[in-house]
Amino acid sequence: MTEPAYVAIDWGTTSFRLWLIDETGEPIATRRSGEGMTTAARTGFQTVLDSHLAAVGAPRDLPVLICGMAGAKQGWIEAGYLDTPTALSAIPAAAVRIPDVDADIRVLPGLAQRAPAADVMRGEETQLLGAADALGAGDRLVCMPGTHSKWVRLAGGRVEGFSTFMTGELFDAIARHTILSHSVDGSGPVDGDSPAFRDAVESTLAAPGLATNRLFCVRAAGLLAGLAPADARARLSGTLIGLEIAGALSLAESGTPVALVASGGLGALYETALAAANLTPFRIDADDAVRTGLAYAAKALWSL
Amino acid sequence: MTEPAYVAIDWGTTSFRLWLIDETGEPIATRRSGEGMTTAARTGFQTVLDSHLAAVGAPRDLPVLICGMAGAKQGWIEAGYLDTPTALSAIPAAAVRIPDVDADIRVLPGLAQRAPAADVMRGEETQLLGAADALGAGDRLVCMPGTHSKWVRLAGGRVEGFSTFMTGELFDAIARHTILSHSVDGSGPVDGDSPAFRDAVESTLAAPGLATNRLFCVRAAGLLAGLAPADARARLSGTLIGLEIAGALSLAESGTPVALVASGGLGALYETALAAANLTPFRIDADDAVRTGLAYAAKALWSL
Repeated sequence: MTEPAYVAIDWGTTSFRLWLIDETGEPIATRRSGEGMTTAARTGFQTVLDSHLAAVGAPRDLPVLICGMAGAKQGWIEAGYLDTPTALSAIPAAAVRIPDVDADIRVLPGLAQRAPAADVMRGEETQLLGAADALGAGDRLVCMPGTHSKWVRLAGGRVEGFSTFMTGELFDAIARHTILSHSVDGSGPVDGDSPAFRDAVESTLAAPGLATNRLFCVRAAGLLAGLAPADARARLSGTLIGLEIAGALSLAESGTPVALVASGGLGALYETALAAANLTPFRIDADDAVRTGLAYAAKALWSL
Repeated sequence: MTEPAYVAIDWGTTSFRLWLIDETGEPIATRRSGEGMTTAARTGFQTVLDSHLAAVGAPRDLPVLICGMAGAKQGWIEAGYLDTPTALSAIPAAAVRIPDVDADIRVLPGLAQRAPAADVMRGEETQLLGAADALGAGDRLVCMPGTHSKWVRLAGGRVEGFSTFMTGELFDAIARHTILSHSVDGSGPVDGDSPAFRDAVESTLAAPGLATNRLFCVRAAGLLAGLAPADARARLSGTLIGLEIAGALSLAESGTPVALVASGGLGALYETALAAANLTPFRIDADDAVRTGLAYAAKALWSL
């Protein structure tokens, strides 16, 4: 068995993922839990970390590298932001060290855009760092879907700027807290292969101004035409994703190659939606990207 | 003192308004309460009505005319819909009578649009009926802001079609149930005179696809630039109203005169927003319109 060299953690708002990495850069143990920033802010970040280190039998003095919301103001330590435009390679050196602990625990910064519009990311910058080699040095538009979808303009390994769309969070808020809660199916993934999803994406790409009208029409179609709850859910999703793509493409040079950094079902859903906009994105797995990004940063910081 | 002739009621989802009308058509008593459809479906519609009739000293056998959500499936009696296109003058005869009660109590129908997109209204049709004389016989685009804003295409006293935008309900859901809840001021009216409101309307009119990006930027501007909560609230409102206006105008012939049927602060807010789209709407008070519409229908039904 190889020796553990360091611990890599993606610590989001509601999720925690840990990899124990050996001297050759290979993961020898992994942990996943729901102990994100929200939970850890109550129970203690060190407590959560210690329990997972114990579970994988890792020594407490191993170096630990963290990305994500653990670096927010409400997190373990405020790790600040690098301002755009910035080289991705500048990220590791801006990590902030947790004081007064035995181990060398560092939290990577987020990125901030001050102009033309204020915007922030925290966690996606590490995915970008991990995807940088695969993305190459040319101009790229990188779509990173999620609760707060990011569209990032890359050029020559630098983040020129980015724009966040509240797509995933709006989907949840509308499905749960508006009149559409009576119309949409309660749970489960959206069926990207359904005509309801593709029609909603195409309609909203063609007329983004009608997005909140199309949302109400989901309810009306339930009342007047018996629209099925699963189709209602697909139309809600397709309308919000179509609106996001319409807006994101309006900010980029036409013809810029698009990359999609996403995992699982969400990646497939966005591939379908991007196809409706005549885009065939280069696909990178988001889980792989964040681990690769943490490994790049660990190597830069500790020559590990 | 004049004799009461009939009772007019605007019975919405969360509000109840009653006017006791005399033989000359003048209101001799009014009542307002929060006993909308949601409350009355639990406590009983007849019970709520009786308590208000007793409070104004009205006889229980007076004719009663009701518009609004009391005619929905979850209401007192399902009053159905008139399909568009339809003459406004056809509304009174489609009223549905409550069976097995002593008094003549009737509920006006809503309107339904089956194509090109499914849409419904319930309550606004009575405002339109009341506003018809003031609106005149030409082509009109009528903006009726609210929880579910309606934009109605009128021609020669007929409703050609209409489109609902979820503006008001989205404002509440986003302010309460998303990350913007940390950024926006908790309550009170939006300041339509603030530059934050007008800038948000103008930006979203210019690029409706960026609406959900502009919403996230409200949060980011709070984090990075200390955006004041009242300005954050104004930007949220301006973004959603700007998106509504952009969409509504895309559905109408350019140059169609716009009328605004609204009351109080919401009317002023929409006047400011419409001015940003270079529109100077003809203004009709929504409270007056619904009472005039109920009076028109009472006259048609009972020669009152």
